[in-house]
Amino acid sequence: MMTADFSAWAAERQAAFEEVLRRVLPQPEVSPQRLHQAMRYAVLEGGKRVRPLLAFAAGELTGADIARVDIVAASVELIHAYSLVHDDMPCMDDDVLRRGKPTCHVQYDEATALLVGDSLQTLAFQLLTEHRLSDGPQQQMAMIRLLASASGSRGMAGGQAIDLDSVGKSLTLPELENMHIHKTGALIRAAVLLGAQCGAVSPVQLACLDHYAKCVGLAFQVVDDVLDAEADTATLGKTAGKDADNDKPTYVTLLGVTAAREMANNLHREALESLAEFGDAAQRLRELADFIVLRKF
Amino acid sequence: MMTADFSAWAAERQAAFEEVLRRVLPQPEVSPQRLHQAMRYAVLEGGKRVRPLLAFAAGELTGADIARVDIVAASVELIHAYSLVHDDMPCMDDDVLRRGKPTCHVQYDEATALLVGDSLQTLAFQLLTEHRLSDGPQQQMAMIRLLASASGSRGMAGGQAIDLDSVGKSLTLPELENMHIHKTGALIRAAVLLGAQCGAVSPVQLACLDHYAKCVGLAFQVVDDVLDAEADTATLGKTAGKDADNDKPTYVTLLGVTAAREMANNLHREALESLAEFGDAAQRLRELADFIVLRKF
Repeated sequence: MMTADFSAWAAERQAAFEEVLRRVLPQPEVSPQRLHQAMRYAVLEGGKRVRPLLAFAAGELTGADIARVDIVAASVELIHAYSLVHDDMPCMDDDVLRRGKPTCHVQYDEATALLVGDSLQTLAFQLLTEHRLSDGPQQQMAMIRLLASASGSRGMAGGQAIDLDSVGKSLTLPELENMHIHKTGALIRAAVLLGAQCGAVSPVQLACLDHYAKCVGLAFQVVDDVLDAEADTATLGKTAGKDADNDKPTYVTLLGVTAAREMANNLHREALESLAEFGDAAQRLRELADFIVLRKF
Repeated sequence: MMTADFSAWAAERQAAFEEVLRRVLPQPEVSPQRLHQAMRYAVLEGGKRVRPLLAFAAGELTGADIARVDIVAASVELIHAYSLVHDDMPCMDDDVLRRGKPTCHVQYDEATALLVGDSLQTLAFQLLTEHRLSDGPQQQMAMIRLLASASGSRGMAGGQAIDLDSVGKSLTLPELENMHIHKTGALIRAAVLLGAQCGAVSPVQLACLDHYAKCVGLAFQVVDDVLDAEADTATLGKTAGKDADNDKPTYVTLLGVTAAREMANNLHREALESLAEFGDAAQRLRELADFIVLRKF
């Protein structure tokens, strides 16, 4: 179960990570200022930072240097932020509210939002080449490759394409799962694996962490669908009920709230089982699984 | 001057490079098919492949393994292609014709075009981590970093942001130059430098090549403006007169056609001077400078 200790840890990590983001993002007075200000607007002061927290917890498990995890966590979060900016645009989900603030294209304009997303993606890869993340450069190259394949057309962006194609269709449960494994799962797995790879980790351990991340990633999405169906806009910080309104298939439309909750609980249990071999060292990852499944927002 | 030999070389390189692109792009039958088909649509069978030709010519100069240059040329071209797809979208230049074909968002849809651009960018970085491009992985990391900084908010995407801000304003010549150094120049420089770095090149030689590329990149843009002002749509393969219609500053609106032509010629001469120390080995780069300045389309 989540402990007060976990809340304190997460709050400390979130606050420290905010400073990391402030440092790695282009400064607002550097030209082109408007673009840089919009990039900061889209990334800073928002979000639960779930992916970074997963990276930090995995890095703690493998004894990673926290300065290295800062960078991989920032790269993953920048990729996530770029996808939200583009996803919110009128030609995609056409959303006006994100993390309780006007979306980037509303606050600035569509052309700027397009460039913000593009530039955040580039910055993610730039960061991974500007800092030493691993004792071996070959290993570091593999880490960059991992982020690229998790983000691209056979990862996150591919999941969004599957999502687009699914509007108005009735997906089966495996099809819905396939979409989410790509759309949100790939980047969550990357967060855990990259955090772990900043430290010392065996291939077997990586496989366990990968399975943990896969379960957590899917649970995250199932819970998202449940919250989207149940919550109101003010609590959620983004427009509620949007997916159902857009005729998008969700775990709730497919299974109903009760069975979706049950599925999330099963994934939660499976995630915890994947951590069995790590003992107490995996406590933060366990607490994060709890946090993701039991969250109310 | 351009020789028949140069035309044959360029045609051979362009044809071979097309096969490289066909190979590195996701295959059309791989899921998500529509996204992958749209990515191929946006990249294949189009363009003069100026950046790849520059990379190949630079690679020949430094004795690079052509298989390595294939990869860096493809990465640069994918970044270029992604920027065109996003640049053509309604919220940016709103262009319906590119390389004589409907633009990506016209042929597919806006949401797909957005994801195509995003995925092409990711693929560019993925390629650079999937192939050995240099004998030292540290050097390869520096090459990826070079592409990232040339493409991001302080490179190409930054240039597009400056371009957005300039609509309806009267820029000075240095301001216009600053825009183009970022918007098109950064990626052209990256093409030359990355091609050269696939082989053996000294820092002094790299500096000469960088200056060459800077001149050629600017000349390329000046000639583009001249052609845009003079040509009709059919010859150009994209909508002509667009920039002037959009009230965007160009070298022609700022200097007039004659002085713009003169500027291109001066840059051409300066580019050739930068190659002096290389002797005959730089013949292809000289011919490419000729090609870029003397082209009619």
